[in-house]
Amino acid sequence: MLKSDIGTPALLLDLSVMESNLKKMAAFFQEGPTRLRPHYKNHKCVALARRQIACGAIGMSCATLSEAEALVRNGMQSVLVVNEIAGAAKIERFANLSRDCDLIVAVDNERTVAALAAASTRLKTRLNVVVDVDTGMGRCGVAPGESALALAQSALAQGLRFRGLTGYEGHCGRMQPGANKIGAAHRAMDKLVGTANLIRAHGLDVEIVSAGGTGTYAITGRFPGVTEIQAGSYPLMDTDYRTVCTDFDLALSVLGTVISRTGNERLVLDVGLKAISGERGLPVLKNMEGARLRRLNAEHAIVDILDPNLPVQVCDLLEIWAHYSDATVNLHRRMYGMRDRQVEEVFVLEG
Amino acid sequence: MLKSDIGTPALLLDLSVMESNLKKMAAFFQEGPTRLRPHYKNHKCVALARRQIACGAIGMSCATLSEAEALVRNGMQSVLVVNEIAGAAKIERFANLSRDCDLIVAVDNERTVAALAAASTRLKTRLNVVVDVDTGMGRCGVAPGESALALAQSALAQGLRFRGLTGYEGHCGRMQPGANKIGAAHRAMDKLVGTANLIRAHGLDVEIVSAGGTGTYAITGRFPGVTEIQAGSYPLMDTDYRTVCTDFDLALSVLGTVISRTGNERLVLDVGLKAISGERGLPVLKNMEGARLRRLNAEHAIVDILDPNLPVQVCDLLEIWAHYSDATVNLHRRMYGMRDRQVEEVFVLEG
Repeated sequence: MLKSDIGTPALLLDLSVMESNLKKMAAFFQEGPTRLRPHYKNHKCVALARRQIACGAIGMSCATLSEAEALVRNGMQSVLVVNEIAGAAKIERFANLSRDCDLIVAVDNERTVAALAAASTRLKTRLNVVVDVDTGMGRCGVAPGESALALAQSALAQGLRFRGLTGYEGHCGRMQPGANKIGAAHRAMDKLVGTANLIRAHGLDVEIVSAGGTGTYAITGRFPGVTEIQAGSYPLMDTDYRTVCTDFDLALSVLGTVISRTGNERLVLDVGLKAISGERGLPVLKNMEGARLRRLNAEHAIVDILDPNLPVQVCDLLEIWAHYSDATVNLHRRMYGMRDRQVEEVFVLEG
Repeated sequence: MLKSDIGTPALLLDLSVMESNLKKMAAFFQEGPTRLRPHYKNHKCVALARRQIACGAIGMSCATLSEAEALVRNGMQSVLVVNEIAGAAKIERFANLSRDCDLIVAVDNERTVAALAAASTRLKTRLNVVVDVDTGMGRCGVAPGESALALAQSALAQGLRFRGLTGYEGHCGRMQPGANKIGAAHRAMDKLVGTANLIRAHGLDVEIVSAGGTGTYAITGRFPGVTEIQAGSYPLMDTDYRTVCTDFDLALSVLGTVISRTGNERLVLDVGLKAISGERGLPVLKNMEGARLRRLNAEHAIVDILDPNLPVQVCDLLEIWAHYSDATVNLHRRMYGMRDRQVEEVFVLEG
């Protein structure tokens, strides 16, 4: 199957670039005591998760229960849901899934701890939790220190297995590299590791101290006391992350067909924001001189022609770099793994 | 099934409001000679398309071939793909689908006309086209007047059935109601109907003159010479369209669960921009005093608590109005039809 046989719009993964990204990240983690537990929410691709494990990852992180289910269904042995869940049905699904895998979920409140504990008793399955610590992002998580200790103790007292802490420093990831970013990430990790030490001082075992993302892995992945990094975007990357992280190369694009050309003014592609995310800004054309993406409508990309001799006609294929890979992958059910102009593998996206 | 039994995040449709919206639009079209051919791209719901037909619509408009396939597979008799297609595989799919339905596609260039004509000859099926006229939006379409005439004549000469024109005045839809909007829409329709008359003056039959959207239907739907209106957003509506069109009420929301509450500062819901679009701006909470949506991350809605006595806890369900219904529906595979707190119908979204 060739690129020209793919129906557009379609999600393309450059396999060579992705493989190189996996190798670079694996090399970083070969040195440290810190390990890599990549985030599945970014690529939603079990085949890619398997390659990450083959490169040394200790398991997968994920954001939703359905992602965890996709991973466990496909044989993943160790999965950390780095997010809160709530509601009786989800607690039940989590408990059932816990039988088949070393499954852990983040908690930040007593209601969910109590619900998990009740399910644990009812189903006679010991359930695993990490306490989510707000290290400065201001989203989920309990305050560092005593609050986290209290929740850990409560979880243990109610029969849950307390495995450790998670504290994603999401407020640092998109800062420009430099002293400010390092300082902010260190302050966040001080809170997280300090909390781990406080909890240990009270006699509890803290096996996991999870943090990090593609924008901060090189800082937090060397921070003493952090045991694992939950980076997700590095295999695929996107033009947004590339502005703050040049360690990895762009591997993800969306293929479109030119469906209209108006003189030397503009092209229109069949790739709109239903196929490529504009949520964090406008994507750009891949390897394309003489034309510039102007805007995305729901079904259309409108491209300005800058070079009147641009040799692009209706029916031609063009690619647009993903600007925000998480949200772009989420718009597709499959991803075409490309080696040059050949489709080497069609990946199913699950979860 | 109750609302509380739905796994979140989930897309909810208020059936009473949707039915009222259908009735209001049907009443408008009962008066005119202009007919309604609603756009499927907005709701992607065949069951809803059937209700639109039952309310008097003459068929469906759609934006992609896969939407047309979903409609035809489910028995729709008349489908207008109000968009350009390109590429051998899509031309073939269009030609095959044309055997089962009165199927029409928009064209704006000679390459696609020639490809359609070749498929028509090869498969011995007469294929239907409308010429897409750029009435001022600056996206696809040929220039009004002679260019459109030439393409219509070329299509006919090559054995295609020329059925008429389409010319969506997308540049007017989100203008505030008033004289400026009416003027802009009238200028667009002057170009479209003027082109239809020019083509008729050259002896060609122009059966279809299609235009209009939810933001302009009341203007273009009464414009002499326009035969059909392709409005799509009116059954579901969204908070973006409501700012320029108050004829229809909001029926579409996304249900989420509170997964975290940090004191009296904030709530976090499990609804991020993977489940509700922020592409045209930030959505707002539905029927919620004392709290305000601050931002959407990929998997989370972060909500500021304004009233410290807000009686909302972890596990509670909240709804967020869709701000951009097209892009929000596109994030889901099913939509829950609600009557009060009961799920009356689960709609599959296709295409």
